[in-house]
Amino acid sequence: MSEEVVLLDFWPSPFGMRMRIALAEKGVKYESKEEDLRNKSDLLLQMNPIHKKIPVLIHNGKPVCESLIQVQYIDEVWHHKSPLLPSDPYQRAIARFWADFVDKKMPDLGRKIWATKGEEQANAKKEFIESLKLLEGELGDKPYFGGENLGYVDVVLVPFYSWFYAYEKCGDFSIEAECPKLLAWAKGCLEKESVSKSLPDQEKVYGFVLQMKKVFGIE
Amino acid sequence: MSEEVVLLDFWPSPFGMRMRIALAEKGVKYESKEEDLRNKSDLLLQMNPIHKKIPVLIHNGKPVCESLIQVQYIDEVWHHKSPLLPSDPYQRAIARFWADFVDKKMPDLGRKIWATKGEEQANAKKEFIESLKLLEGELGDKPYFGGENLGYVDVVLVPFYSWFYAYEKCGDFSIEAECPKLLAWAKGCLEKESVSKSLPDQEKVYGFVLQMKKVFGIE
Repeated sequence: MSEEVVLLDFWPSPFGMRMRIALAEKGVKYESKEEDLRNKSDLLLQMNPIHKKIPVLIHNGKPVCESLIQVQYIDEVWHHKSPLLPSDPYQRAIARFWADFVDKKMPDLGRKIWATKGEEQANAKKEFIESLKLLEGELGDKPYFGGENLGYVDVVLVPFYSWFYAYEKCGDFSIEAECPKLLAWAKGCLEKESVSKSLPDQEKVYGFVLQMKKVFGIE
Repeated sequence: MSEEVVLLDFWPSPFGMRMRIALAEKGVKYESKEEDLRNKSDLLLQMNPIHKKIPVLIHNGKPVCESLIQVQYIDEVWHHKSPLLPSDPYQRAIARFWADFVDKKMPDLGRKIWATKGEEQANAKKEFIESLKLLEGELGDKPYFGGENLGYVDVVLVPFYSWFYAYEKCGDFSIEAECPKLLAWAKGCLEKESVSKSLPDQEKVYGFVLQMKKVFGIE
């Protein structure tokens, strides 16, 4: 079957990074199209008319949206290689729970760390660290959340590593000091080419954050 | 296999209703335990230590949390009867997309309709109706979102029908006038015993809302 896979992406997006990692794990070749989010393409608006957001995965002309759903779709379609979700229903529910937890906490708290100040920032930093510690507890002594192999929660969480330096600089704290095991896990993930090739450099993301702070008038 | 299924629930919760419908569709017998959310049980705190929220599905002593994940778990474990998610990966992704859409819109906008006033309420009402119209468009001329049979999106959305009267009274509008097809769909769902036995009476929910408005000092 000839397959056409297109990814509408934006380089600093942790959600886009999830697609890049999952597709790389599965060995799927695809065409990446970088979006300008201040001037969204007709293709993006047509393929994701409800949320108008990247990433959009277009598989043989049909769009799949929302990154947690997209990673599951990729896992189900290309099921012959590198399974991401466990096969046991209970373990699948646990993996989905923690992926959902990541989405409930990280994007919003991370944004507050770089985009707010004072009490709002301090509260976000506190909850951010608490959330990372809960994730660290769930990881335990396993090399990956998925166990011996990179799995769903790893794919969902590790993109935020590329934002860690920006969070640390803006929030004046050290994630390694707070969560050494989680940092070791992230570095372990980065030894995989599927991850290292999908994540931008931390300093480049920090540069992007500084630029956004300027655009939004945040000192 | 002897099975023990316990549901920690709270009667007006649309999320709890999802469990009741899904378990009824599958013909699973379970023990329901009503929680007092102002005085949560030790069992609830122990079974859902992260979010401390109902519903919790306890299957042979092991907890599953978060209703969208729970419905998928129920569908995967009791897969012999009444499939809720489609078997095709693309159709599964579409069902997950709309279930996620329901969760992104309905609880928050619904709450704003009964708990706020003025511009905030008006904006919520407008977006609420727009969201219902998008759902109506997705439903099209099918009897259910799941096609010929009740499916995942039906289970996820129909509980909010029990809140419609409360939204209408608090927001002074008619959902039937705005979205007649969606209302016909809800009434079709209610012809199934799995749904009718799982949803509380609309006036009872409205009574609960009036009580909450009093507790929170909302006139």
